[in-house]
Amino acid sequence: MAGNTFGKVFTVTTFGESHGPGIGVIVDGCPPGTALKSEDFVHDMARRRPGKRSFESPRKEEDRVEILSGVFEGLTTGTPIALFIRNRDADSRPYEKMRNIFRPGHADYSYFKRYGHVDFRGGGRASARETAARVAAGVVADKILSPIGTKVVCYTIELGCVRAEHFDIALMDESPFYCPDPDASRLMEEAAQKARNQGDSIGGIVEIRVTSCPAGLGEPVFDKLEADLAKAVMSVGAVKGVEIGAGFEAARLAGSKNNDPITPDGFASNNAGGILGGISNGDEIIIRAAVKPIPSISIEQDTIDRNGNPVKLTITGRHDATAIPRINPVLEAMVRITLADHYLRYMQVVRLKTEESMLST
Amino acid sequence: MAGNTFGKVFTVTTFGESHGPGIGVIVDGCPPGTALKSEDFVHDMARRRPGKRSFESPRKEEDRVEILSGVFEGLTTGTPIALFIRNRDADSRPYEKMRNIFRPGHADYSYFKRYGHVDFRGGGRASARETAARVAAGVVADKILSPIGTKVVCYTIELGCVRAEHFDIALMDESPFYCPDPDASRLMEEAAQKARNQGDSIGGIVEIRVTSCPAGLGEPVFDKLEADLAKAVMSVGAVKGVEIGAGFEAARLAGSKNNDPITPDGFASNNAGGILGGISNGDEIIIRAAVKPIPSISIEQDTIDRNGNPVKLTITGRHDATAIPRINPVLEAMVRITLADHYLRYMQVVRLKTEESMLST
Amino acid sequence: MAGNTFGKVFTVTTFGESHGPGIGVIVDGCPPGTALKSEDFVHDMARRRPGKRSFESPRKEEDRVEILSGVFEGLTTGTPIALFIRNRDADSRPYEKMRNIFRPGHADYSYFKRYGHVDFRGGGRASARETAARVAAGVVADKILSPIGTKVVCYTIELGCVRAEHFDIALMDESPFYCPDPDASRLMEEAAQKARNQGDSIGGIVEIRVTSCPAGLGEPVFDKLEADLAKAVMSVGAVKGVEIGAGFEAARLAGSKNNDPITPDGFASNNAGGILGGISNGDEIIIRAAVKPIPSISIEQDTIDRNGNPVKLTITGRHDATAIPRINPVLEAMVRITLADHYLRYMQVVRLKTEESMLST
Amino acid sequence: MAGNTFGKVFTVTTFGESHGPGIGVIVDGCPPGTALKSEDFVHDMARRRPGKRSFESPRKEEDRVEILSGVFEGLTTGTPIALFIRNRDADSRPYEKMRNIFRPGHADYSYFKRYGHVDFRGGGRASARETAARVAAGVVADKILSPIGTKVVCYTIELGCVRAEHFDIALMDESPFYCPDPDASRLMEEAAQKARNQGDSIGGIVEIRVTSCPAGLGEPVFDKLEADLAKAVMSVGAVKGVEIGAGFEAARLAGSKNNDPITPDGFASNNAGGILGGISNGDEIIIRAAVKPIPSISIEQDTIDRNGNPVKLTITGRHDATAIPRINPVLEAMVRITLADHYLRYMQVVRLKTEESMLST
Repeated sequence: MAGNTFGKVFTVTTFGESHGPGIGVIVDGCPPGTALKSEDFVHDMARRRPGKRSFESPRKEEDRVEILSGVFEGLTTGTPIALFIRNRDADSRPYEKMRNIFRPGHADYSYFKRYGHVDFRGGGRASARETAARVAAGVVADKILSPIGTKVVCYTIELGCVRAEHFDIALMDESPFYCPDPDASRLMEEAAQKARNQGDSIGGIVEIRVTSCPAGLGEPVFDKLEADLAKAVMSVGAVKGVEIGAGFEAARLAGSKNNDPITPDGFASNNAGGILGGISNGDEIIIRAAVKPIPSISIEQDTIDRNGNPVKLTITGRHDATAIPRINPVLEAMVRITLADHYLRYMQVVRLKTEESMLST
Repeated sequence: MAGNTFGKVFTVTTFGESHGPGIGVIVDGCPPGTALKSEDFVHDMARRRPGKRSFESPRKEEDRVEILSGVFEGLTTGTPIALFIRNRDADSRPYEKMRNIFRPGHADYSYFKRYGHVDFRGGGRASARETAARVAAGVVADKILSPIGTKVVCYTIELGCVRAEHFDIALMDESPFYCPDPDASRLMEEAAQKARNQGDSIGGIVEIRVTSCPAGLGEPVFDKLEADLAKAVMSVGAVKGVEIGAGFEAARLAGSKNNDPITPDGFASNNAGGILGGISNGDEIIIRAAVKPIPSISIEQDTIDRNGNPVKLTITGRHDATAIPRINPVLEAMVRITLADHYLRYMQVVRLKTEESMLST
Repeated sequence: MAGNTFGKVFTVTTFGESHGPGIGVIVDGCPPGTALKSEDFVHDMARRRPGKRSFESPRKEEDRVEILSGVFEGLTTGTPIALFIRNRDADSRPYEKMRNIFRPGHADYSYFKRYGHVDFRGGGRASARETAARVAAGVVADKILSPIGTKVVCYTIELGCVRAEHFDIALMDESPFYCPDPDASRLMEEAAQKARNQGDSIGGIVEIRVTSCPAGLGEPVFDKLEADLAKAVMSVGAVKGVEIGAGFEAARLAGSKNNDPITPDGFASNNAGGILGGISNGDEIIIRAAVKPIPSISIEQDTIDRNGNPVKLTITGRHDATAIPRINPVLEAMVRITLADHYLRYMQVVRLKTEESMLST
Repeated sequence: MAGNTFGKVFTVTTFGESHGPGIGVIVDGCPPGTALKSEDFVHDMARRRPGKRSFESPRKEEDRVEILSGVFEGLTTGTPIALFIRNRDADSRPYEKMRNIFRPGHADYSYFKRYGHVDFRGGGRASARETAARVAAGVVADKILSPIGTKVVCYTIELGCVRAEHFDIALMDESPFYCPDPDASRLMEEAAQKARNQGDSIGGIVEIRVTSCPAGLGEPVFDKLEADLAKAVMSVGAVKGVEIGAGFEAARLAGSKNNDPITPDGFASNNAGGILGGISNGDEIIIRAAVKPIPSISIEQDTIDRNGNPVKLTITGRHDATAIPRINPVLEAMVRITLADHYLRYMQVVRLKTEESMLST
């Protein structure tokens, strides 16, 4: 009810603030007998970690995921999996002097209106730090998707007005932005560095692609797969737009052009982005998300304090110039979580021929 | 769980198929003592009704909303409000010959993959007919928003590649597309008529604007107001993209430009679209939705039947050339429902100074 | 949220008041391909119907169940099944004179405290009439349990201080109270008739037994099978107590006596009532419910009106002398619904070896 | 969905196993601005702790509650409150030799049927250890109830067939069983000691009483206050029966006797146990729970192993002779949680005259 839980069968509940003891998540509904160990989280947590690249803040977050429950002898038991990531290097003094000031573009103002009592240190609950818990949950979701071959990958197609023109997914890991176009990646790096030098920030667009997703996932009306994916993606702080398949371009196509013809070998095009009537059709699922520039900039800004008095604000300290690429594994995680949830929901609908034999075991 | 319910406190559950007895909705969580009568639904149901305009199919749907429960002596009682709209003019014979054929761009293929047994008549549960129930629920949601002055309005800003250039909201009701630019509206009408003559269809972009929404609505993490709005909008069949405030354009702005400065008189700009950190900030909420062209066209298309054999399909019968403007009141309704739900959720969070006095009544 | 929905995967949402247009229910989550037709409801609705027996009120309720959605060509489609039962013979004039008076033992007082605006006619939403919708939903639940052989039966073991001493389930249908002891049944009939003649009412105890329930149903912590069954049973108006297996007697047994030994052929006793640690163990599930006497009596009672003034109240009109046996099919329905829900929830937990083959269909 | 969450607005999600790293709980939906600190948990955690009394096992559990999130500068922020209690003294070796054996009366058999892969150490997730998290959550619930004066107290009225005859609540804290009758308490102590000496165990009945609960809490149909209380109480491992007010005795009363007359000064009796039509009526809420004897006994028992072979089982190690009185604070906690949830749900229903003023702040 308070909006800290996502999913209906495979549910993910996060907790924690950026400058409290740590960030955590309860993953509930994971089937028993799934192999899971602390090391499984290392790769994805590292991708979300800041400080590896020149345009990023050199903060150090170790982000080791501790499994607090739900795993026994290396296998999940079907009971809640609690994961905890302790906070470190959490110096909250820089925030003390801003405790009564609403930072533009941040949640300070609206949180204050809602709660009155707000943990202002580093954004508190509104901090991007919270997404560490989502990435951890995404690793568990991946354990459900892997056996059926479903893969989720997120790459950058635009940053600081630089657009990728060529797409060689194999090359994306060589780019600091997970950009599949090496030339564009270099220009993106320049744009990010330039923004950083100016104390400013930039935004961009990422694309998430799901391969080998079974047909039949999604519910018909409100929990359409594209509706839940839109919510999943838009629930990540910096995202201000989301589209599926042809997306906003579909609004400019004639029906005869936008409809994907069906052939005995599959769909002849994929404007639908792999989803028809809210239900996956077996084709690739394609999602794009608009990522706004990071609001923490060191250029002076106009704002007010809690008493409504005008204030000139200059945010010091180290901040990333762009939420990309750190947001990419977060979006991947949210899509994985959404698909794992819908996959398990789908399991119930299927009329099992094997029900009786299962019950007799 | 099966995706037919939207909302957590103010909940809306729809049921019904396009060619069954009718379409209905249970609205639960509406506070007691709210005036509600059958006539309240007439205006909005009429706006969703087809057949008034040259580019639309001349089907006749009366769409009278019957209140089955939850209202006594003209006031809601706090118990579930069941609304029912009987289907009429439901000739399913045209669909009989297509019962084994998957119509491109429709939900036929994916529904079949999910359910096996599908009501193929006019899309069944996937039909736009289902949205009649949403519009009815939106009328109830409006009863919650009206007393606090919150208004939701939806207008067309692009159709068939024609963009509105001037915005005079007062003029939108004179346009058959609820377009606030009379010149653009005329060109849109031509585009729609041309598509209709060719047996083709067109799409467009609509904008939804919420005025006088209190600050503080929305939950911090997964149920961010923009996440729930994105889901609400994307759950409407033809929508393939959604953006908030500057949306995809925000991805191209520097942080210093995208951040909305705060002044003692309010926000100096509104790139955030009225939502910061997932919580409303009191400014106008701005949402845009990409509406794809209607998939039912009379131009011959390639597809397959249930056995996987290739088929040439020509859809006969009368169909709208565009989902706009009939989709507009549906999107309005979904936004109203989302806001009513979050408003009631917000009510609990607010630390009531008046608790004791309330309890003593 | 407003408490009109039961279940998590197989969900049942009722609506309607005793003197409104009718009573209905949305059954969601029923798997597609299940045979369902209007006639399937006749038997159970008839059992809940009043007026067949001398100690009951001669009101006539036809209770024909109309299927409004979710069924196509005789099979469920996996979309919401809406069922509606129109009210008849709903003379609300007798209630007019009591509109400001709180009837003792009824919900009038507490509803008024909660809602302020209350449909007082015949109890409105609090009327036992609402249970007609539950019985209809129970028929759908039974469609899920039948294929796996699970049967639910409810019989009376005590009424008006008369206890059944012999149990021949085969004879229960010959008793007007579904009492499996013919001698006790005759004494119960006398007790009911006597109470009726005195303008008074009596209560009793019913037992619900579930045979061939698979082992493994139920969740470990809050949604223990016995917890959900307790809620299901206690949610029926007249029930004031519930116990599982040995129940309150278990509190008087030593552990060495209460523990059910396990043998290669099954459990040697069944004090657990078929549930261990909240999860079914494959043995018979045994539930008992205490049913209070009906509060509508024609003996004069002390009460107050809405202004707090003392009133002498004599309720006229025809009323049953006991909620038994009409409550029995309602309790059966609630247990069926609970089990159908947990059976579908169980389906997801089971680690399917057949996953891949299912997906390839 | 997986049954680890209780409540709809004030939600409690527990995680953890008896021999894992620890036990925890996420309390979500607690209003912001509530004072909460680690010391607040000490008193209730101590009451649940074993080893203080002669008839209990001398295990040492420190049960210090660590606040991981949701509290800032001593006040709740409205975001999830995560509480964690690290496990200590968790020697799992005694369980190793029983890993393939189903202990009678325990969840071993049914868990194995459900999950296949089970953490057998000390009951794992099914251990009473899980209730430590519930007690911690109950402390937070109490913070919501205290300001409105609502108090929950749980005392023992029967143990090992000894019934309390006199009720002086003031004396209950002097009894090791929270029994309000000192003479009965002494006999209970003898009964417990005797059972312990024999390697056996005993059960009993506890009563929970809620004073100063506002009228109007509870939902009308499925989420009746008594239904949710029944579920809350029955979700505690050892409980096999629950009754409200007169409970099973109500089944033996005439309506004229069972109905509570209403006077200008309140109800003249309280057979209803403070709840009418599922909604609190302002009178004391009275709940009784039947607690079965602890299944872990050192007397030899018949059972089977995972392969179905018969086994003679003698459980060694130290175990309590009765779940009472350690279960009492757990039941108190569950009732507090249920009431806090319903109190916050009630807040939404109330038609606030002060809405506008609240919004303008």
